[in-house]
Amino acid sequence: MKFTDLGSHKRLTELAKNPPDLTRASFLTPERIDKMAVEALSWKMLYATEAVDSEVEKALVRLSREANVLEKMAFLQEMQVMNYVNNCESEERRVGHTAIRALEVSPYASKELTAAVDAAKSEMVKLEAFLPKVDKFKAMVVVGIGGSYLGTKAVLEALKAYQQNGRKLYFASNVDPDKIQSILQEVELATTLIVIVSKSGGTLEIAAQEEVLRRSYAKEKLDVKNHFVMITTQKSPMDTPSAYLETFYLWDYIGGRYSVSSMVGAVPISFMLGLSIWKEFLRGLHEMDLHARYETDPKKNLPLWGALLGVWNHNFLKRGTFAIIPYAQGMYAWTEHLQQLFMESNGKSVSQKDGSFIDWQTAPVLWGTVGTEGQHSYYQAIHQGTQVVPVEFVGFLESQFGLDDEIEGTTNQEKLLANLFAQSLALAKGQKDVNHNRYFSGSRPNHILLANRLDAYTLGNLLAYYEHYVAFQGFLWNINSFDQEGVQLGKRLANDFLELIKELHHDKPSKEPVKDRMLVHAFLQNLKNYTTKKS
Amino acid sequence: MKFTDLGSHKRLTELAKNPPDLTRASFLTPERIDKMAVEALSWKMLYATEAVDSEVEKALVRLSREANVLEKMAFLQEMQVMNYVNNCESEERRVGHTAIRALEVSPYASKELTAAVDAAKSEMVKLEAFLPKVDKFKAMVVVGIGGSYLGTKAVLEALKAYQQNGRKLYFASNVDPDKIQSILQEVELATTLIVIVSKSGGTLEIAAQEEVLRRSYAKEKLDVKNHFVMITTQKSPMDTPSAYLETFYLWDYIGGRYSVSSMVGAVPISFMLGLSIWKEFLRGLHEMDLHARYETDPKKNLPLWGALLGVWNHNFLKRGTFAIIPYAQGMYAWTEHLQQLFMESNGKSVSQKDGSFIDWQTAPVLWGTVGTEGQHSYYQAIHQGTQVVPVEFVGFLESQFGLDDEIEGTTNQEKLLANLFAQSLALAKGQKDVNHNRYFSGSRPNHILLANRLDAYTLGNLLAYYEHYVAFQGFLWNINSFDQEGVQLGKRLANDFLELIKELHHDKPSKEPVKDRMLVHAFLQNLKNYTTKKS
Repeated sequence: MKFTDLGSHKRLTELAKNPPDLTRASFLTPERIDKMAVEALSWKMLYATEAVDSEVEKALVRLSREANVLEKMAFLQEMQVMNYVNNCESEERRVGHTAIRALEVSPYASKELTAAVDAAKSEMVKLEAFLPKVDKFKAMVVVGIGGSYLGTKAVLEALKAYQQNGRKLYFASNVDPDKIQSILQEVELATTLIVIVSKSGGTLEIAAQEEVLRRSYAKEKLDVKNHFVMITTQKSPMDTPSAYLETFYLWDYIGGRYSVSSMVGAVPISFMLGLSIWKEFLRGLHEMDLHARYETDPKKNLPLWGALLGVWNHNFLKRGTFAIIPYAQGMYAWTEHLQQLFMESNGKSVSQKDGSFIDWQTAPVLWGTVGTEGQHSYYQAIHQGTQVVPVEFVGFLESQFGLDDEIEGTTNQEKLLANLFAQSLALAKGQKDVNHNRYFSGSRPNHILLANRLDAYTLGNLLAYYEHYVAFQGFLWNINSFDQEGVQLGKRLANDFLELIKELHHDKPSKEPVKDRMLVHAFLQNLKNYTTKKS
Repeated sequence: MKFTDLGSHKRLTELAKNPPDLTRASFLTPERIDKMAVEALSWKMLYATEAVDSEVEKALVRLSREANVLEKMAFLQEMQVMNYVNNCESEERRVGHTAIRALEVSPYASKELTAAVDAAKSEMVKLEAFLPKVDKFKAMVVVGIGGSYLGTKAVLEALKAYQQNGRKLYFASNVDPDKIQSILQEVELATTLIVIVSKSGGTLEIAAQEEVLRRSYAKEKLDVKNHFVMITTQKSPMDTPSAYLETFYLWDYIGGRYSVSSMVGAVPISFMLGLSIWKEFLRGLHEMDLHARYETDPKKNLPLWGALLGVWNHNFLKRGTFAIIPYAQGMYAWTEHLQQLFMESNGKSVSQKDGSFIDWQTAPVLWGTVGTEGQHSYYQAIHQGTQVVPVEFVGFLESQFGLDDEIEGTTNQEKLLANLFAQSLALAKGQKDVNHNRYFSGSRPNHILLANRLDAYTLGNLLAYYEHYVAFQGFLWNINSFDQEGVQLGKRLANDFLELIKELHHDKPSKEPVKDRMLVHAFLQNLKNYTTKKS
């Protein structure tokens, strides 16, 4: 049945006509704050400040049941084919990011799951042997794009406080020539490892970056084979182990945006933070996987409950964006990773069930920054602007460094938490004022995620929370969260532009006839004009 | 007259019912691409890929006239009081960021403008004398929040390629204790300058950070007076010149989000990049100021035309967000600065003219990242998602380093531009496909901003473009873009939480009775529970 035909959808549509008003007298009470909480592993969600009441909650629970989302989560984790769109040619793949962080396989597991767990274990064995061999290296450059680095960066920056070896890591993450040059200015090639990440082994930008680096090594008469590490799938064009110090594998069932759990994350993170932190992180992921799959009460299943609150705000209260705002400096890189996770997974318009175009909203625009920075920036708009923005605040009770002076009677970590709680309450309650310029309408929905400390385990929990939040929303919306056909058209057109640039600027005939040649040419004219003007 | 009562508003509402479809046969032609361009100073805007035709353009021009936006821009630049809301107690201030980058004053200038230009010049004289005195320093820590650092960071990172002195700069930009500790681990205090930025001289977080740093200097027996520089307003509580190596001034007519043009930007940027780059940047700003004020044809006035296209997409085509996507690695920090500029300025709900609540949309949610990163991330959603996102692409014809290998027949900079053009065209044209999963609806509005090279002058132009884009939209929407009352409620509530934390966790009675004490307490219970659980 279509999302919009479900009984729960009709009920929620009805309820959304007159949603709970958080500013109503005696609505937001201490009892409500106590009661509206979900605890799961190292995390606790406080959602009294969401615009829900028991009727809305009941309908959301019903929605999760009618859409069979827990059954689909089990299919996913059992590695059934979940990356497909019926009636459309599509990738038709299994999805295995939960499998590769499973530590053991049940005897009842599917053949595919068992094989995936075993394959992941054997890469782990290679990694354990590899790390001592590269002990002398002081820096690493990871050449990877999008999913090949956003997750790794997010995790590394968040856990940097625990680094002890003083190594440096750089991401050569895009084709911009200024980026790679700025890295080359900083590193000493002789003590640097280069890690090339290319799942398909055929991405143009990666090959171009690798080539620039190979030339730099050649100039210094250093042997690439002692410095370059490859991460790719078996039998890809880049699976040429003899050309590399080591080749690690990933698999077609690991999407780029889910690849931080694979060697894509494992190699740089264990190089920087050590293997035991990496294993703690994996344990955090895996335990949240089990929670997402086996906690059958939607109101106790943290990622499912988060997903349902999100659907309420997005599809029924019609809020087009969602801000995730961590009150932790180390998490500054999460926005970009989560943008990919949420919007590449669920920025879709086609029904998985029958390939028809759907007529309900899917992924909201996901945005945000570290909280204390946002407070002095766009918070004006989320408090008094004309657009209501649902917010997820993320906070920690203790600081990472444990060094925290008491100033004016409270620690800085307490100041951080005071601000987080205050913003949540301010958005919900608002403030009436005869001065309209100081009037806060309130009833702006938000919730808080709290953990004790930002460490490898809580972070593993959190990443898997987001991955399953996204998966559950994809199930609810009946879309395929695991492909990304929407990036193909731009790629194809970029090739057309490049062919014509070759022809116009380098006097080389283009290999293939360029589609829309005249349009492409019209854009490129600007390039030519400027070049001419300059000279 | 109200925005929604203007004749042009009615006309645009009418036109929006059946907006131009960019995918229509023979609509997007080479002629259209040539014709729909605006050139101003170092920038060119290509907007053939916006959903406008000559009727829409005519109505937008009429809108700008009916809302008297050029007259208001002149008032602003003449330093009339533009920060006010009628019938509400409000800041009632002049707005002077354009004044402080004016290089000379016309004899017809207002008294206030003349005074502001003179005051800015005398700070510049101080800066020229100051720089040689601090030549021996190797690093700088800027302690500032929000507007006191976001603009500086955006500019510095974008121009880092031109740095020659190897100095390091750190921003201690929030109260998070992990942030300042991570800086203290990296810098050598003896060769470091500390720059404290506090316009009011009374921000709690800044005082707390300064205190942490003072203690660190005391521990190493270094004299703060040889290391600490203050930037504040005259007669603020922090205007105690004898306690600092130097004190620079700013003024109440410089809002935080516009302060990068003042000593707030000048001190760190000239320390890092040299005075001549700083002056080039100022020249770029000033020339765009003059363009914004004196170019009376809305279709040739770059920031005004950008603002009008934005209003068309936001208020009439009902697109709730706006993505700014630069194809230049150095501009990665612009999203955060622009979020503050756009959303703190225009995230408002009150009519400037009469203090009534308005019933039209103001600031959209502003988001984005560097383009090549976005392409491998959220582009799926902007191409095939259910939410249409207007995009501004920003690109440069040459790289900054000028080091750019030719690989497979084109340079990396050409690859970058090919991608930029391709995305613009792909969003506009779309692609029909019987496979729904490979279908791109197209007609997704966007435009391109092009300049020759990312340097101090083009960047000055660009920043002023955005500042005036925002000012023009504020004028169109009839709101006060220059205050930020929306951040006050959160601040007040944060103090309530801190008072109660002192009482509950540090056994100190709270100074004042805490409003909503029971609610605040209910949130803090979670803090207590966790603390107890842990021990």
